[in-house]
Amino acid sequence: MANAMLLPVILSFLVLPFSAMALTQDFCVADLPRGDTPAGYPCKEHVSADDFYYSGLAAPGNTNNIFRTAITPASVSQFPGVNGLGISAARVDIAVGGVAPLHTHPAATELIFVTQGTIVAAFISSDSNTVYSKTLYKGDIMVFPQGLLHYQYNIGVTPAVLLVAFSGPNPGLQITLLALFANNIPSDVLPKLTFLDAVQIMKYKSMLNGTA
Amino acid sequence: MANAMLLPVILSFLVLPFSAMALTQDFCVADLPRGDTPAGYPCKEHVSADDFYYSGLAAPGNTNNIFRTAITPASVSQFPGVNGLGISAARVDIAVGGVAPLHTHPAATELIFVTQGTIVAAFISSDSNTVYSKTLYKGDIMVFPQGLLHYQYNIGVTPAVLLVAFSGPNPGLQITLLALFANNIPSDVLPKLTFLDAVQIMKYKSMLNGTA
Amino acid sequence: MANAMLLPVILSFLVLPFSAMALTQDFCVADLPRGDTPAGYPCKEHVSADDFYYSGLAAPGNTNNIFRTAITPASVSQFPGVNGLGISAARVDIAVGGVAPLHTHPAATELIFVTQGTIVAAFISSDSNTVYSKTLYKGDIMVFPQGLLHYQYNIGVTPAVLLVAFSGPNPGLQITLLALFANNIPSDVLPKLTFLDAVQIMKYKSMLNGTA
Amino acid sequence: MANAMLLPVILSFLVLPFSAMALTQDFCVADLPRGDTPAGYPCKEHVSADDFYYSGLAAPGNTNNIFRTAITPASVSQFPGVNGLGISAARVDIAVGGVAPLHTHPAATELIFVTQGTIVAAFISSDSNTVYSKTLYKGDIMVFPQGLLHYQYNIGVTPAVLLVAFSGPNPGLQITLLALFANNIPSDVLPKLTFLDAVQIMKYKSMLNGTA
Amino acid sequence: MANAMLLPVILSFLVLPFSAMALTQDFCVADLPRGDTPAGYPCKEHVSADDFYYSGLAAPGNTNNIFRTAITPASVSQFPGVNGLGISAARVDIAVGGVAPLHTHPAATELIFVTQGTIVAAFISSDSNTVYSKTLYKGDIMVFPQGLLHYQYNIGVTPAVLLVAFSGPNPGLQITLLALFANNIPSDVLPKLTFLDAVQIMKYKSMLNGTA
Amino acid sequence: MANAMLLPVILSFLVLPFSAMALTQDFCVADLPRGDTPAGYPCKEHVSADDFYYSGLAAPGNTNNIFRTAITPASVSQFPGVNGLGISAARVDIAVGGVAPLHTHPAATELIFVTQGTIVAAFISSDSNTVYSKTLYKGDIMVFPQGLLHYQYNIGVTPAVLLVAFSGPNPGLQITLLALFANNIPSDVLPKLTFLDAVQIMKYKSMLNGTA
Repeated sequence: MANAMLLPVILSFLVLPFSAMALTQDFCVADLPRGDTPAGYPCKEHVSADDFYYSGLAAPGNTNNIFRTAITPASVSQFPGVNGLGISAARVDIAVGGVAPLHTHPAATELIFVTQGTIVAAFISSDSNTVYSKTLYKGDIMVFPQGLLHYQYNIGVTPAVLLVAFSGPNPGLQITLLALFANNIPSDVLPKLTFLDAVQIMKYKSMLNGTA
Repeated sequence: MANAMLLPVILSFLVLPFSAMALTQDFCVADLPRGDTPAGYPCKEHVSADDFYYSGLAAPGNTNNIFRTAITPASVSQFPGVNGLGISAARVDIAVGGVAPLHTHPAATELIFVTQGTIVAAFISSDSNTVYSKTLYKGDIMVFPQGLLHYQYNIGVTPAVLLVAFSGPNPGLQITLLALFANNIPSDVLPKLTFLDAVQIMKYKSMLNGTA
Repeated sequence: MANAMLLPVILSFLVLPFSAMALTQDFCVADLPRGDTPAGYPCKEHVSADDFYYSGLAAPGNTNNIFRTAITPASVSQFPGVNGLGISAARVDIAVGGVAPLHTHPAATELIFVTQGTIVAAFISSDSNTVYSKTLYKGDIMVFPQGLLHYQYNIGVTPAVLLVAFSGPNPGLQITLLALFANNIPSDVLPKLTFLDAVQIMKYKSMLNGTA
Repeated sequence: MANAMLLPVILSFLVLPFSAMALTQDFCVADLPRGDTPAGYPCKEHVSADDFYYSGLAAPGNTNNIFRTAITPASVSQFPGVNGLGISAARVDIAVGGVAPLHTHPAATELIFVTQGTIVAAFISSDSNTVYSKTLYKGDIMVFPQGLLHYQYNIGVTPAVLLVAFSGPNPGLQITLLALFANNIPSDVLPKLTFLDAVQIMKYKSMLNGTA
Repeated sequence: MANAMLLPVILSFLVLPFSAMALTQDFCVADLPRGDTPAGYPCKEHVSADDFYYSGLAAPGNTNNIFRTAITPASVSQFPGVNGLGISAARVDIAVGGVAPLHTHPAATELIFVTQGTIVAAFISSDSNTVYSKTLYKGDIMVFPQGLLHYQYNIGVTPAVLLVAFSGPNPGLQITLLALFANNIPSDVLPKLTFLDAVQIMKYKSMLNGTA
Repeated sequence: MANAMLLPVILSFLVLPFSAMALTQDFCVADLPRGDTPAGYPCKEHVSADDFYYSGLAAPGNTNNIFRTAITPASVSQFPGVNGLGISAARVDIAVGGVAPLHTHPAATELIFVTQGTIVAAFISSDSNTVYSKTLYKGDIMVFPQGLLHYQYNIGVTPAVLLVAFSGPNPGLQITLLALFANNIPSDVLPKLTFLDAVQIMKYKSMLNGTA
C-alpha cells in the first residue's frame, strides 16, 4: 500500500485538476422559491443529507372524506431532493369501502406497492377503452401507464395502504369528478360534456363545492 | 467555378467516404407490420416522397353521431412518415351544436388552428381544477398541455373545422364518457367512480354501448 | 348522490392533501424577460387562458419581398404558452410565383397543412442528397424531418397559405442564402464555400444586405 | 340523458373514426424473446391485466450470503409491463448485521421506502466525494441519484425491508467488490486499481469467486 | 477478510438473485442487418471488447478531391458499439488550401479537437445569420451547435487534422452544395432557390455530378 | 441575379417577420454565476465566438501524483459553450507506468481518441461483471458506456495522451478509491463495504487524505 509520504502529491491531485468540477450536477435539489422551469426547479446552493430524505409518508392520511381515501404526496414540492431525478413518491390510504376515485397523472407513470389490505386496481386504455383490472394482495405491485385513467378500491375488511412511486418528480393528479364539478364550468356547458340534466349537475356542484 | 475535369475526383469524394453513412437516420418511416417499440416503429427500408405526405384530412369527417363531431386522425398508424419525428396531425369537424367531448391525449400536447367557424375551447388544470377557456374565431390558435382534460364546442351557426397538431406521433385519445361506460366496468363498481345510481349507469351503458 | 352535508369533509379532502401539490407543472408559460435555459424559459407565475391562445396567425403576412413569401412565426417568443410543451406554429403565405426559400429548422420537425393554393414542397436527405418532392393541394399535409433542407413554391394562380406546426417551441429558421450572404463572411472566404467568383459574391451581398 | 335510439349512430362514431387508432401506444409490454433496443424491448402483441402486475416481491429474499442481504429485482426482465414506462421496482431484505454493499445503478435513480427495520443509508457524490448519510426508520423514504455509489446497512435488531423504485425499467446493478474481483481482471492489473498486494487480491478473488 | 468457506453462499448470492437481470442494458451494440428504429438499432446478442473499439480513424483520409478535404466517419454504421450511447466520432483531414465545405449535421452537435495544423472554423446562427468564427491552433477545441451551418478551412502550410466527436451515434452530414446540385432538382426550380441563372446552374450540376 | 433595387424590400423581409425570433435557442452558453437547473445553466445574454472555443486542453496535465495520471476537464464549468449541447471534452495524460484509476462518469458515456502512446483500456459490465478490455494504439478509439466502471493504464515506454469526449456537458467523475477513503465514512462502516480490516483502512485513509 502506498506510503503516507505521497500525501502532498495526492492532495495536489485531488485539489487541482478536479476542483474546477465542483459544480458537477450529481443532483439538483429544488430551490422552490425561485420558481419552476420546464425541466424542474433551479438547484439549491447548499444541500445536506436531509434534502434527500422525507418522513412525511410514515403516518396514515385522513380518510374522513367522501371517497374514504387519503392521498399523501411526496412530489418535488414536498420532497425537493427528487427534482430532476425522474422519480417521486406518495402514500394512499383507502379505508374499508373507500375508493381512490377515477383519475390520471398527466406527467408520470405510477407503480404501486400494496403493503396492507386487499384492493381492486384498474386502468383504462385510450381509444379502445379496455379495462385492465386486478385484485391485489399485500406484497403485490402494479403499474399504471402515464396519462391513463385508473382507480383503486378497497375490497377487504381492513384499511388498505399503497406506497406509490411515480416516473417523474411532479406527476400531477387530475380527479375526473373534481375536474368536472369542483370549479366554474358553466351549468349550461356541463350537459354537453356529461349528458347529465340540470338537477343532477347542481347536485354534483353542491357535493363537490363547484360554483355555477 | 470549378472545371468539369474534376468530376472523377468529386465522384470519389461523394462515393467513397460517405457511402458508408447510407444508413443515416434522417427519418424513420414506420414499418407498421413489424410492430411497435417504446420509441416508435422500426424503419421501413424503401421510402418515397409519398411516405411524407397525407391527403386524408382534406375531406370533412362524418358528424352524424351523438356528439355531432368527427375526429379524423393522421397519427403514425395513418401517416407512417411521422414515426420518430415528434409530431402528428388530425382534423376535427364540429357540426352546429356539436361538441368534442371531454377527453385527454395521454401522450401529446395538442395545438389547434381554427380554420372555420367559432368555438369555445377549454382545458382543466390538474390539482386545482382551474378551467382555462377561450372563445376562438377563424385564424386563432390554442394549445392544450399534454394529458389534461379538454373540450371544444361549436357556438356558431356554421360547422367548425379545427386542424390539429400533436407533439408526438401517437397521441392517444381517451374520451372520459367512453372510458367509463363503453366497456365492461362492472355496474356495481361504477357508482364508486361516479356517484351515479344503477338506473343512470344503465342508461349510459346502453347509450354508449357498454356491457354489464 | 351524496348529500350536501358532506361538504365540510370534502373541503378538507380538497384543501388538505392536495394543496401541497399546487405547484404541479401542468404547463410552464414562458416568463420571457428572465431569459432562456436549455429546456426553455422559466415559468410565469400568474397565467390565464389568454396565455394559451394566439391570434397572430389570422391575417396574411406581407409577401412584398424578394421571395414573395411571408413567414409569420408563433414560436415561444410570440406565443409563450407553448414553452416546454414540445410544439409551436407558424403561417406561411406564398404569393403567386413565390418561394419559401431553401432553409432548415435546426431544432424541430415541420408539418404543414395546405389550406389554400397549390404548391410543390420538397426536402433533401443528408448524405445521399435525395430529393423528396410532392405537389400539394388544399387539404394535404406533409412532414419535413428536423434539420433537413427544404423548400416550397407556389405553382398555382392564387396565393398559397400553409399552416405550420413544429415539434418544438423554438424551431429556428436558417435560410441558406441569408446564412451565406446576409452577414460579414469575408469575400475571400465565400469562394471556398460556394465556388462563386468575386463579382457574383458582391451581387449576392448587395442583394441580401451583407457586408464585406 | 340521450336516448338509446342513438346507439347505431354512436357505434359508427366509435368504430369508424377511431378504429384506425387501434395501435396507439398507451403502453408497450416487453416481448423479451425478440431482444432489446436502445429504448427498450419491442411491444408484445397481446396483453392482459396480468402483464401490469407482479407478485414476486411479496416474499423475503434469501439473506444467507456473505452480505446477509437479498436484492429481488422487478426490472423489465421479471416484470415486462414496465417496458418503456420509465419505472421499475425491487425489494431489498437486510438481515440483522447485513449490508447492501457499495454499488451503483448505472441507468436509474433509486427511491427507497423503509417498510421494516432501521437502517443507515448513504450515497457519495462524485468529484467531491461527499457522503450523504441518514438513519432511516420505518416509513421513511430516501432518494439516491443515478449512477452514484451508495450503500445501506441494518443497524437494528430485526430484519430490515426496503421497497425500491427505480426511475427506469432496467436500472442495472454494479457492486464494486464484485466488479473488481468476481471476474478475470488479471492479478497484476488489480494492484494498479486498488493498491492491494497479491495476497490480499487472491483472498478477494477466492472469496468472490473470481478467476486469475 | 471473509473466509473462503463462504464461497458456496456467495455463489448462490451471485447466481440466484441477479441471474434474472442478465439482460440489463448496459449497452446495446447495433445489430445493423436488422434495420433501424427511431432510437437506434436493435441490440446484437453476443458482444466482445472489439465491438467497443474502432481503428478506422488512425489513417488520414484521401484529400484528392475538389474540396481537398476528407471526412472519415465513425458513426454507428462503422462503429456499432456507439448505438444508443449518445456519441460518435469522425476524423477530418484538410489539405493545405482545403476546406470542409458549408454543411450541417441534422442530428448532433459537433466538437472538434485540432490535433495538427491551423484552421479557421465558423458556424452561423439561425435567424440573425451571425458568424461565430475562430482561428484554431493545435490543441484547441471548438463546439458547433446541432443543425447549424458551419465550415472549416486550412490556413496553414501543413495538412490539418481534426478529431471530431458528435453528440449522437448518427449525426448525418448535409453539404449545402451537394444538397443543391448533386441530385435531380429540376433546373427550372434551382433559380428560385439560388437566384443563379441557367448557365451557372449547369456548371454546378456538371461539377457536382447532378442530373437535370 | 436579383437587382439591388430590391434591397429595401429585402430589408423589410429580414427585419420584420424574423425579428421576433431573435431569441431562438441555437445554443445556450452557460451563465455559470446564476446556478444550475436540471437541464443545465441559464443562457448567457451576450455571446461571442470565444464562448464556443477552449484552449485548456492543449498542454499536458501534471502527472506527478499517486496515479501518475492527470485528468484535465473541459466540462461546462470550464467550457460554458457546451451547456445544453449534449457534449463535452477532457484530456487524460498517463505517465509511463501510470493508471487512470477505476472510476465512473455517472452522467455520460465516454469516447476516447488515443493520440499518443499505448494503453490498455477496459470497462466492466453491471450484473455479470464481465470485463471488456482492449490494448489501444495511437489512432484507436474506444467507447465506455455511461455509468460503468472503467480504467486505462499505460503499457508503453512513452507518456500516453487521450482526448476524451463525453455525451453530456457535465459527466461527473467518481473515483472508487477516493469515494471510499477520501472522505469521512466512519472507520467502523468501511469494513462492511470493503471487508478490509482496521489497519488497512487507516492506511487508505492516510494515503488518500480521508478523515476518521
